Amino acid sequence: MSVGTELLLGEITDTNAQYISARLREIGVSVYRRETLGDNRSRLTGAFREALGRASLVIATGGLGPTDDDVTAECLAAALGLPLEFHEGAWEDMLEWYRVRGRTPSPGDRKQAMIIGGGIPFRNKVGTAPGQAILTGGKLACVLPGPPREMIPMFEEHLVPLIQSTFTDLVPLYIKNLKLTGIPEVKVGEMIRDLMDSANPTVAPYAGRGEIRIRIAAGSEDLAEARKMVAQVADEVKSRLRDYIYGEDDDTLESAVGEIMSRRGLSIATAESVTGGLVAHRLTNVPGSSRYFKMGMVAYSPAIKATCLGVPDEAIWKDEAVNEETAVSMASGVRTLAGAKIGLATTGFAGPTGGTEKEPVGTVYVAVSDEDGTEVERFIYTGSRRDVKEYGAGRALYVLWRRLKRSRRKPQGSKEGSGQ
Amino acid sequence: MSVGTELLLGEITDTNAQYISARLREIGVSVYRRETLGDNRSRLTGAFREALGRASLVIATGGLGPTDDDVTAECLAAALGLPLEFHEGAWEDMLEWYRVRGRTPSPGDRKQAMIIGGGIPFRNKVGTAPGQAILTGGKLACVLPGPPREMIPMFEEHLVPLIQSTFTDLVPLYIKNLKLTGIPEVKVGEMIRDLMDSANPTVAPYAGRGEIRIRIAAGSEDLAEARKMVAQVADEVKSRLRDYIYGEDDDTLESAVGEIMSRRGLSIATAESVTGGLVAHRLTNVPGSSRYFKMGMVAYSPAIKATCLGVPDEAIWKDEAVNEETAVSMASGVRTLAGAKIGLATTGFAGPTGGTEKEPVGTVYVAVSDEDGTEVERFIYTGSRRDVKEYGAGRALYVLWRRLKRSRRKPQGSKEGSGQ
Repeated sequence: MSVGTELLLGEITDTNAQYISARLREIGVSVYRRETLGDNRSRLTGAFREALGRASLVIATGGLGPTDDDVTAECLAAALGLPLEFHEGAWEDMLEWYRVRGRTPSPGDRKQAMIIGGGIPFRNKVGTAPGQAILTGGKLACVLPGPPREMIPMFEEHLVPLIQSTFTDLVPLYIKNLKLTGIPEVKVGEMIRDLMDSANPTVAPYAGRGEIRIRIAAGSEDLAEARKMVAQVADEVKSRLRDYIYGEDDDTLESAVGEIMSRRGLSIATAESVTGGLVAHRLTNVPGSSRYFKMGMVAYSPAIKATCLGVPDEAIWKDEAVNEETAVSMASGVRTLAGAKIGLATTGFAGPTGGTEKEPVGTVYVAVSDEDGTEVERFIYTGSRRDVKEYGAGRALYVLWRRLKRSRRKPQGSKEGSGQ
Repeated sequence: MSVGTELLLGEITDTNAQYISARLREIGVSVYRRETLGDNRSRLTGAFREALGRASLVIATGGLGPTDDDVTAECLAAALGLPLEFHEGAWEDMLEWYRVRGRTPSPGDRKQAMIIGGGIPFRNKVGTAPGQAILTGGKLACVLPGPPREMIPMFEEHLVPLIQSTFTDLVPLYIKNLKLTGIPEVKVGEMIRDLMDSANPTVAPYAGRGEIRIRIAAGSEDLAEARKMVAQVADEVKSRLRDYIYGEDDDTLESAVGEIMSRRGLSIATAESVTGGLVAHRLTNVPGSSRYFKMGMVAYSPAIKATCLGVPDEAIWKDEAVNEETAVSMASGVRTLAGAKIGLATTGFAGPTGGTEKEPVGTVYVAVSDEDGTEVERFIYTGSRRDVKEYGAGRALYVLWRRLKRSRRKPQGSKEGSGQ
């Protein structure tokens, strides 16, 4: 139950409900219904009563603050037919929170220490409002603060253990995500169709912008057994899609290329036109990227492409510098300029205007240059200016990743081995 | 009612509910409850029955596809006690959709042409599944497809007019958003506290990353009257917060600075260290930015700062190049290099490691350079690497906007007037 009139007004996005749903599934709880209600006593109390009639676990977020509008705990108490009582321990925790910050509580704060009779307060490390839970008639009901940075730690540290100790027959899911790039979703579907029919572990692909995540989830009372089931399917997926899997779980394409470059002592410089700095932004999002990221150039004007990157005049004035030769010159030019091992370049037309008959809006060239030479590819995307930038940047990182992967496989004796 | 097991599993984000809530409010409908249910016949039918008992308008999205899992229309029909009937017109529309695309319908598609007896099909211009609505017993119930790009046009073109013609006493809201930057939310609250107490128009600030939106909404049967009410309050807010308001509604900080630079024939070049290309990315997100954005440099390594931007050695090797002098040299250096009217630079420590005692992680210097000279500011942010980059880039755009605004106010006779 997500509580807050501002949610019903569509003014803020409810991220709590999705977070809680996904985590409950992982620990083995089936979620049957989610509701969003405003800060209205009668409607909220009624909704709690209905929910408690249907489910053995009811979780509400939001409406725990000090103002009169915050009625969630009161409504849950009413639905349960239990009183709200002032809780010394919860109040002490709140005073301590203020003490540490050199601040004093306001009169309304005492209201936040009102806990449902027989309930357990959850300490809030980030804000003042405690959460609370009550186990009654075999049902667990609880309320958590609305702000995600308060809700999430409380959910993880207090509620998850309480759910697991209350409902001892839950079968948790063990989950692994494989991250892919450079392959269309429909192709991934074809390659793993048979695995997707499995009920345990389940295998499901989710498509993002130019990237795909394959989620493998197994449920077993024995965690080691679940891990093994997942590992077996993951190995099978890897054997079929090895050329496209860049990482797992929290890995990103930029962290994957960063890890390879770090490990092999490589360095990179970027020259971007169509992607406007997004490739540099993504590469530098990775902690420690200053070790291998030397420089990025966003070369929007033809003069800059010529002066700084040495793109030849005849390439620049052909198709407004959107062509293979420009991309190649930019990649090798920025590599030389920065004294980096690798140069990565993009040029194209992001739109909405511009483009030529031969090179329409959505055209993106990606070039990557290293000691072995330069490779270049051309793509056409449809979508908004932002879409073209985002797909183009993703494709540039994929082309880089693929080249790093291929060069790793080179035989030791080749002329540009890693020792040079 | 958002329908789909994948929503309850937390696998996808429900953007429809927020969109519909916000739009309903604008047309004058009070939203009291939102629910999310899986593709389960008995639970969904029960939920429809409950909702129809409470509300005069029930809107469901999702679960209209051709597969056996798609049961939304069937459950709504069951809750209403009405049959589903094959609808020739809806089927013809679907055949036409396939014809245009040179494809043929599959057997399951006929199911999508099943419309609740007495109901109205809504043509789907983007996909195959029609929506539908039925007016019965003074209540309007309808189902729309789940994919937002199918749902939104259908909602706007078919459902909104139907709601307005069914419930003729709705009082729509007229809404204007003012966009602010460079001022903390708490300060905005203090400045407009009295206006926030008003019930019509309502005035409410919403804080984002370093930016604030003040939403002013008025309801009146007379749209001209509502506009006037909003305009009056907007003028009052503007008179109090003029120095921070960069635009309205869909304006972004980058589109606001772009508009000023375009209009005044200015050009810009950026030199980024800590923000890693994000400033260039944001500036180039604006359509037409190639007219004024000359180049961006992401100068991560000290050598690049020296060679390309002319940052003096003594600045670079002090505090790892995070200092005022470096920021100033970067801004003026990139301006000279690119031959641009304005140079904008950032340097700092994004973390999680790095930083010095004097310049800790989170330190960001922003410098802006033009014909009048260079100004520089220092900020310290707390948060993740990504947070520091995002706040830093926002601050850089704010400092740029402020300088553009101030220089516009210069007397005509000053030596660097707009004509030079």
